[in-house]
Amino acid sequence: MKHVEKMISARWIIPVEPDNQVLDHHTLVIHEGRILDRLPTAEAERRYQADSHRRLDRHALIPGLINAHTHSPMTLLRGLADDLPLMDWLQNHIWPAEGRFVAEDFVHDGSLLAAAEMLRGGTTCFNDMYFFPETTALVASQVGIRAAIGLIVIDFPSRWAANGDEYIAKGLEIHDRHKGNALLSFCFAPHAPYTVSDAPLKRLVTLANQLDLPIHMHIHETAHEVNEATARFGVRPLERLAGLGLSGHHLMAIHMTQLQPAEITHLAQAGTHVVHCPESNLKLASGFCPVQTLLEAGVNVALGTDGTASNNDLDMFGEMRTAALLAKGVSGNAAALPAHTALRMATLNGARALGLADDIGSLVPGKQADITAVFMDDLECRPVYDPVSHLIYTCGRHQVSDVWVAGRPLLRDRQLTTIDEADLHRRIGIWQEKIARADHQTVAE
Amino acid sequence: MKHVEKMISARWIIPVEPDNQVLDHHTLVIHEGRILDRLPTAEAERRYQADSHRRLDRHALIPGLINAHTHSPMTLLRGLADDLPLMDWLQNHIWPAEGRFVAEDFVHDGSLLAAAEMLRGGTTCFNDMYFFPETTALVASQVGIRAAIGLIVIDFPSRWAANGDEYIAKGLEIHDRHKGNALLSFCFAPHAPYTVSDAPLKRLVTLANQLDLPIHMHIHETAHEVNEATARFGVRPLERLAGLGLSGHHLMAIHMTQLQPAEITHLAQAGTHVVHCPESNLKLASGFCPVQTLLEAGVNVALGTDGTASNNDLDMFGEMRTAALLAKGVSGNAAALPAHTALRMATLNGARALGLADDIGSLVPGKQADITAVFMDDLECRPVYDPVSHLIYTCGRHQVSDVWVAGRPLLRDRQLTTIDEADLHRRIGIWQEKIARADHQTVAE
Repeated sequence: MKHVEKMISARWIIPVEPDNQVLDHHTLVIHEGRILDRLPTAEAERRYQADSHRRLDRHALIPGLINAHTHSPMTLLRGLADDLPLMDWLQNHIWPAEGRFVAEDFVHDGSLLAAAEMLRGGTTCFNDMYFFPETTALVASQVGIRAAIGLIVIDFPSRWAANGDEYIAKGLEIHDRHKGNALLSFCFAPHAPYTVSDAPLKRLVTLANQLDLPIHMHIHETAHEVNEATARFGVRPLERLAGLGLSGHHLMAIHMTQLQPAEITHLAQAGTHVVHCPESNLKLASGFCPVQTLLEAGVNVALGTDGTASNNDLDMFGEMRTAALLAKGVSGNAAALPAHTALRMATLNGARALGLADDIGSLVPGKQADITAVFMDDLECRPVYDPVSHLIYTCGRHQVSDVWVAGRPLLRDRQLTTIDEADLHRRIGIWQEKIARADHQTVAE
Repeated sequence: MKHVEKMISARWIIPVEPDNQVLDHHTLVIHEGRILDRLPTAEAERRYQADSHRRLDRHALIPGLINAHTHSPMTLLRGLADDLPLMDWLQNHIWPAEGRFVAEDFVHDGSLLAAAEMLRGGTTCFNDMYFFPETTALVASQVGIRAAIGLIVIDFPSRWAANGDEYIAKGLEIHDRHKGNALLSFCFAPHAPYTVSDAPLKRLVTLANQLDLPIHMHIHETAHEVNEATARFGVRPLERLAGLGLSGHHLMAIHMTQLQPAEITHLAQAGTHVVHCPESNLKLASGFCPVQTLLEAGVNVALGTDGTASNNDLDMFGEMRTAALLAKGVSGNAAALPAHTALRMATLNGARALGLADDIGSLVPGKQADITAVFMDDLECRPVYDPVSHLIYTCGRHQVSDVWVAGRPLLRDRQLTTIDEADLHRRIGIWQEKIARADHQTVAE
């Protein structure tokens, strides 16, 4: 018998690779943070001796979920204002609060709350875009969650940086300081076509090619954006970006609710990744991303929650479900975006978009042991004919029992192992009071 | 001090009547199953002495949720088949399973599972349509949940009845036997325009007027239905029904994804109720109900989950959220269907549609004490700027801590008080095995 660190056995394993499989009574063998083997439990018990063996007889194991687009510190603004026209929401609530509060301490506590929420919901990796990204990187690293840190670039000054050049310079410094951290990866994160001018975008194309980093950008989020840009530049944003060299497999295009057939063909040919954020698109009335058409065209489509100010949670279970339901409604086809595809979008497709598919996104030997266990025996989940159907159409994130990142348990029986929940509650309480008071003042003014 | 049976104090009470209110640190005083008073907690403690006083310092109290359209016994078919074109799904999975298994025992156990699921999710009243309705009535009555029992009518024979006349006769017998039961109300439930012919519909109009009962019917669920009917009858289904006298405040029209402006005006003028089932409409790709337009026209719109075969749950929290998000996307207006409206649809509007608004649907003195308590201090719900925003956009049904129907606690600290969960799990296990085996055989044939 071979000696290994850890075994996790479950009633079902849904590995995502190969496609559309459910393995009954299987075991993952884990050693040095990676999946060493995946085999029937009876066989695993004959072949391996493990320091620890977790048996999850009423659970499904899935790859840790990958939230491919969020603004994690915005958890502190969750539910501050809703149900408002976009400009009222931004100008009278979100921007004043951000202008007043966004600094290192805000980003620290907001990122910590986001990490806690994501781990409790089975998310093991998130792709972030916000100010003070090094603070988010440090929080993720301390907690042990995997993060793709967006090196934000925007034309406008903030407390983080004064102009495009400084944003890029500070981003590169962060990349240099932390590139050896196995939990962290980096993306350039120019905010959007309408907030970043040509010169910094050209520099980012060169840098992304040199450093082999993805570019994470809101694109074609609303019809308004596309119309304004067309009036200003004479072409739609995607075409302008392509003209600057921004296209191809380095590009993660977030939202994409406005797409013409030729653009979809171009995305597929270029290998550009699309990140679908269905709940944010609905809540802000941005439009409908044609996900089923994109998938059929061969575009890699990942899934993100967006920030909690427009969602209002970081719940990838909810997002998978909304994506699967909405795609059927939008395409008029009840067979569109089936459950296995929704799970793949929230795992492997996210890993591909981030350039991390060799390491995460599926439960196959050789990859990192980023694993989520889902309890399937609540009354709400009974009976079980197909555990993958339940994961998408029935389960809630509260059924996540255990989470591992690189083999390290970060959630065990619903308890966070690396975050002091009581202290986090206390910190949020202080922010809540400050932010609510300021919001009331802003509205009163 | 006045002696009363019960007080429930909470951090927030959202009474639904009056509109758009959040009461801080308030108490409901309950006596003989009804709400006697609603007042600030400090004042309640001076005025009343209660046999029991439940203090919920980190919770919101809302009216018990009303699921205005479901087929409760179908819980036993949850997730049996998904992601299929409608006819494949019905003809190769759902109908064969129903044909083989639907009888009293199936309806009993399925209704019991549905009652358990709904109570655990904060639903205190459901409007049902299925075969063997007396069995569902008895289960609801034993459990203590409120139910509007649909007296089903369909042209086709089933194990329950052979033809329209027998369906109606058996329905009337059930109504006569149980009309004194305070937890039960009754609706005539002709299945749909395409499955019920003119003669029984005319009889139901007469009977509904005589007995003052609502008529609960799937109408304009899909474009296909409307097109077929127009070809067959020369008019759209709503017009045919109106010609038969089926219109006005007795009618609960379920789904209504296909509506023309003149039809919306007609619904508003006639006082017809619409029940919106957003998740089912998405999952089956039925179309989009124009909810915001209906609300603006003054139509009373309630909310339902539909059956678990097309949802796949009985989760009114999920349904409120999907309704609120989808209405924004469909109308292109981020201010459409705000949080308070979503809650009203899932409570008071459902009570109005069922003719029960004098008794349930809001937390006002004089009404039945049908109450749901929601724990709001999970990390996922922090910070709290507006508890109503959180109820719709952030909370999950698993945060429901306590539920009362007519003042009787049916869920206490997440424990069902009137259902033996272990026995229910055992019963479901038996059905799961039988139904899965039969489905595999059907597919193999």
